[in-house]
Amino acid sequence: MTRRMPELSILRQTWSPYSDPRSTHTVQVGKVRVGGARPIVIAGPCAVESLDQTLEIAHAIKRAGADLLRGGAFKPITSPHSFQGLGIKGLEILSEVRRITGLGIVTEVMDPRLVSEVAEVADILQIGSRSMQNFPLLTEVGRAGRPVLLKRAWSATLEEWLCAAEYIAVQGNRNIILCERGIRTSCHWEYSRNILDLNVIKPLRQATPLPVIVDPSHATGQAHLVPVMSQAALAAGAQGLLIEVIAKEASRVQARCDGEQGIFPEELEQIVALTHQGAPAASFNSAASLVGGLAK
Amino acid sequence: MTRRMPELSILRQTWSPYSDPRSTHTVQVGKVRVGGARPIVIAGPCAVESLDQTLEIAHAIKRAGADLLRGGAFKPITSPHSFQGLGIKGLEILSEVRRITGLGIVTEVMDPRLVSEVAEVADILQIGSRSMQNFPLLTEVGRAGRPVLLKRAWSATLEEWLCAAEYIAVQGNRNIILCERGIRTSCHWEYSRNILDLNVIKPLRQATPLPVIVDPSHATGQAHLVPVMSQAALAAGAQGLLIEVIAKEASRVQARCDGEQGIFPEELEQIVALTHQGAPAASFNSAASLVGGLAK
Amino acid sequence: MTRRMPELSILRQTWSPYSDPRSTHTVQVGKVRVGGARPIVIAGPCAVESLDQTLEIAHAIKRAGADLLRGGAFKPITSPHSFQGLGIKGLEILSEVRRITGLGIVTEVMDPRLVSEVAEVADILQIGSRSMQNFPLLTEVGRAGRPVLLKRAWSATLEEWLCAAEYIAVQGNRNIILCERGIRTSCHWEYSRNILDLNVIKPLRQATPLPVIVDPSHATGQAHLVPVMSQAALAAGAQGLLIEVIAKEASRVQARCDGEQGIFPEELEQIVALTHQGAPAASFNSAASLVGGLAK
Amino acid sequence: MTRRMPELSILRQTWSPYSDPRSTHTVQVGKVRVGGARPIVIAGPCAVESLDQTLEIAHAIKRAGADLLRGGAFKPITSPHSFQGLGIKGLEILSEVRRITGLGIVTEVMDPRLVSEVAEVADILQIGSRSMQNFPLLTEVGRAGRPVLLKRAWSATLEEWLCAAEYIAVQGNRNIILCERGIRTSCHWEYSRNILDLNVIKPLRQATPLPVIVDPSHATGQAHLVPVMSQAALAAGAQGLLIEVIAKEASRVQARCDGEQGIFPEELEQIVALTHQGAPAASFNSAASLVGGLAK
Repeated sequence: MTRRMPELSILRQTWSPYSDPRSTHTVQVGKVRVGGARPIVIAGPCAVESLDQTLEIAHAIKRAGADLLRGGAFKPITSPHSFQGLGIKGLEILSEVRRITGLGIVTEVMDPRLVSEVAEVADILQIGSRSMQNFPLLTEVGRAGRPVLLKRAWSATLEEWLCAAEYIAVQGNRNIILCERGIRTSCHWEYSRNILDLNVIKPLRQATPLPVIVDPSHATGQAHLVPVMSQAALAAGAQGLLIEVIAKEASRVQARCDGEQGIFPEELEQIVALTHQGAPAASFNSAASLVGGLAK
Repeated sequence: MTRRMPELSILRQTWSPYSDPRSTHTVQVGKVRVGGARPIVIAGPCAVESLDQTLEIAHAIKRAGADLLRGGAFKPITSPHSFQGLGIKGLEILSEVRRITGLGIVTEVMDPRLVSEVAEVADILQIGSRSMQNFPLLTEVGRAGRPVLLKRAWSATLEEWLCAAEYIAVQGNRNIILCERGIRTSCHWEYSRNILDLNVIKPLRQATPLPVIVDPSHATGQAHLVPVMSQAALAAGAQGLLIEVIAKEASRVQARCDGEQGIFPEELEQIVALTHQGAPAASFNSAASLVGGLAK
Repeated sequence: MTRRMPELSILRQTWSPYSDPRSTHTVQVGKVRVGGARPIVIAGPCAVESLDQTLEIAHAIKRAGADLLRGGAFKPITSPHSFQGLGIKGLEILSEVRRITGLGIVTEVMDPRLVSEVAEVADILQIGSRSMQNFPLLTEVGRAGRPVLLKRAWSATLEEWLCAAEYIAVQGNRNIILCERGIRTSCHWEYSRNILDLNVIKPLRQATPLPVIVDPSHATGQAHLVPVMSQAALAAGAQGLLIEVIAKEASRVQARCDGEQGIFPEELEQIVALTHQGAPAASFNSAASLVGGLAK
Repeated sequence: MTRRMPELSILRQTWSPYSDPRSTHTVQVGKVRVGGARPIVIAGPCAVESLDQTLEIAHAIKRAGADLLRGGAFKPITSPHSFQGLGIKGLEILSEVRRITGLGIVTEVMDPRLVSEVAEVADILQIGSRSMQNFPLLTEVGRAGRPVLLKRAWSATLEEWLCAAEYIAVQGNRNIILCERGIRTSCHWEYSRNILDLNVIKPLRQATPLPVIVDPSHATGQAHLVPVMSQAALAAGAQGLLIEVIAKEASRVQARCDGEQGIFPEELEQIVALTHQGAPAASFNSAASLVGGLAK
């Protein structure tokens, strides 16, 4: 039942400037360079809940050294009876927070009809796990002229993930950042929301020059595991982290979504410090480490 | 990490006419009654490829006794470089085939912007596995005034599936048919595309009065397993089947999608015959069999 | 990463009398023929707890029409602080119950040092899921001169399962019965202990002539799902069932293991009736249904 | 279906000297201290194939700085037609290699009847994944007076793994080292043999004071992923590594088992160097990092 990987334009083998496995197609977002020498940190609240809440966290993550602000205006939520985000009002808040702090904005879009509106505010358009194979949406964000952060679906194969990225690329947009955020298994429910798949980082970076980042917040679902798994992700070759932050302990209960996985700004600061320590020993920046074939 | 199931309007406990586990909320589609005494059969090609191909199969499944015609005009396909369906042209073909054969049409919609156009042709709007948590799409089909066939996502929990149905229901549309189509596991790749989860049928029917059908074609990915797994699905309490059909052996190679899982009209006829044999012995139509609690 | 299936002596392709996919290598156990025209039913308590308890259930399952008695003297239990079975004392009880009722005994052996002792009492030696790849044990039961019931491990591939059977066969014993008992997935915990994999039955019967049975008790973990999943298993081509029985409602709480999945003798009787209804429509006894290749 | 974790003697809550989550129950093996300040490295061939081969690798891993020698005399192999190890002859070779090199030996035992013979040679008795719930074997190694390295089964929950360790502990032996070696998922087959579950390391170390190590060789199945995943494992808090080594490129094809995952001695040397760099930043040696509850 094994099928051969289709010929995709985002693979090294067909994207000629990037046949060298040491090279990355960097994605420039204002002054931030995703895929460059230093791993980047995107941080912020799960959902934009108010201007005050978002601004407080934005200031805090900026002080902590994060590169970009994440925050959901449109939230994909399992039940229709739960908070779905502030929507357009949330976009206005993000726009205002960017104006005040100067931080670039990463925010999710779920509806192809809203791509242009979200793209006016977003510096990076995020495609969530549930939307990884929402092909009309991928096509629309491919046309929006903005970098795209594409999360892996819960049990997507490497081929399915790369093919999803290709839907964006065929619209002329290869400024795609791939984000591993944990997979579902049959044995992790006692201690973790998902299992962070770090085995995939190197094979993915060998297959494509697109930058690869990790979301340790959704991969664990618990604040106390975020710092240690951030450290592991960097050691495995992740080129960035996407992290949920809450302002203070009270926020854990007050937060309208996923309060239990947000970390505090001072913990974020320690994680940012890790990204300044230089490449890990088993680095991907030497030819020796990345050469070697993708499993066939 | 166990969370309590949210209070949904589609659960028996909150939908008062259906507190009796023997009862089903039947969905009427023309003269076809989904959830009635006889399990229904929906059959047809994977994709609408031409008027001739679709009409040939439609005539054949009608002769075989199938109740409704399935066929994809918009196909969710892993790679953007593969055939995606004929789109609007495919809808026109389906409309013409309905006019000629009188068969009701089941066809997928993937894009919220196309719901009204697809709803003009479709008697049942199909939501595919990849779209089960496409919330803007669920909302739009909830408003379209057409019955909806909602497939389970590859690794969706019962709660996630029912919450997806609730997104449709909160728009005022409870004419929802749930369709199990196989899940992914860690150990089936040698012999099957997915594993058909028949354990879920009874718990699902206990939790909600919505009719539950099974797609043995995607659950197996191989034509030779479709008849036997159809039989097993009916024995497990499925209230209908969704089956891919090809016209003749030559179509297996010629088909532009999933040729290896289509069965022939004569095999379909034998499966239809099973649905006329009356309820299986361990039937859900006795109080004794359905009473007993959903696993806690 | 796909490897080719090794050449095993238990495959149809190498076991010449059984190249015809309609044929089964029947396993004779006293007057009971496993793999014959009628599916067989093995029933009994989870664990042998006392002579009275075992004898009461044995009489009840005999009246209900079951073919063989199951009951554990040695129980593989997750925690060392839980009841592990009566051990040798349990064997003595089983021996006495066989003398009184005439029922053949199926009981588990976990320790290669105890195989000959268990084989003195057992008509069929059971290898549990946790022991499927206990190679010294498989070798020992292969030498014991008794039929073997080999359960599939929780996430075993078809190849791993067949190779485990081959460990028994290479000792000169091909009287092996394969038993599917549910696999672990990432999405079933709310409603079922495991997922019964019925997709595997036909590919398994195509690959090997060994009889294949199903354990719906462990595959569901809940008494109310056992009758309906027994029916589904027979419809999928299972050649027998292995079912846990409790004597009365009080036993559900009193039972020292797995009380919640035992069914009552009257429910068992209805299941036994199903096995007398003749082969299901999509039967394996016609060449057409079993011919067709194992997925490659 | 969630059950409460049983009260085990190896949990911090019941093992009074170790209620502080910063503490580890160290396991002393000659001069090597497992669970001490520096992570340890166990390395060697998959199987002992000859004195020359084992001695060559032993000298090489000693030069590279590894702490202990691993090597299989008894190999649990899927098919009975594949190489099963040299058995007793393999033990003799390991004994001779220890005499010559002074390296402590880690080797697997699969059969309870051979525990005392293996224990004469082994400094640490290894229990493989397939034997994690081989309860007679666990009981026997619990009595053997040797430290035990207990690998996690392919889809074992945390509770099942800890209960397996408890089977050893109840025999009076708490010198147990837990080893994560990759789990099976539904989506990794294209690029990795298993997925290394690093999410489990911290919850495991919070639950029990037993030292926790990682086997990146089996968790990836590919030599080129071993260095980077070793680095990630240390970053996640692993207290040691278990690594397969081959002497030279020719060995990859000649090796009688798992040649494709063995790394060269010079790569091992770089991995050993990582263990001398001191605790990672998000270290478990501060109270702040380990405090925080195990998921409930």
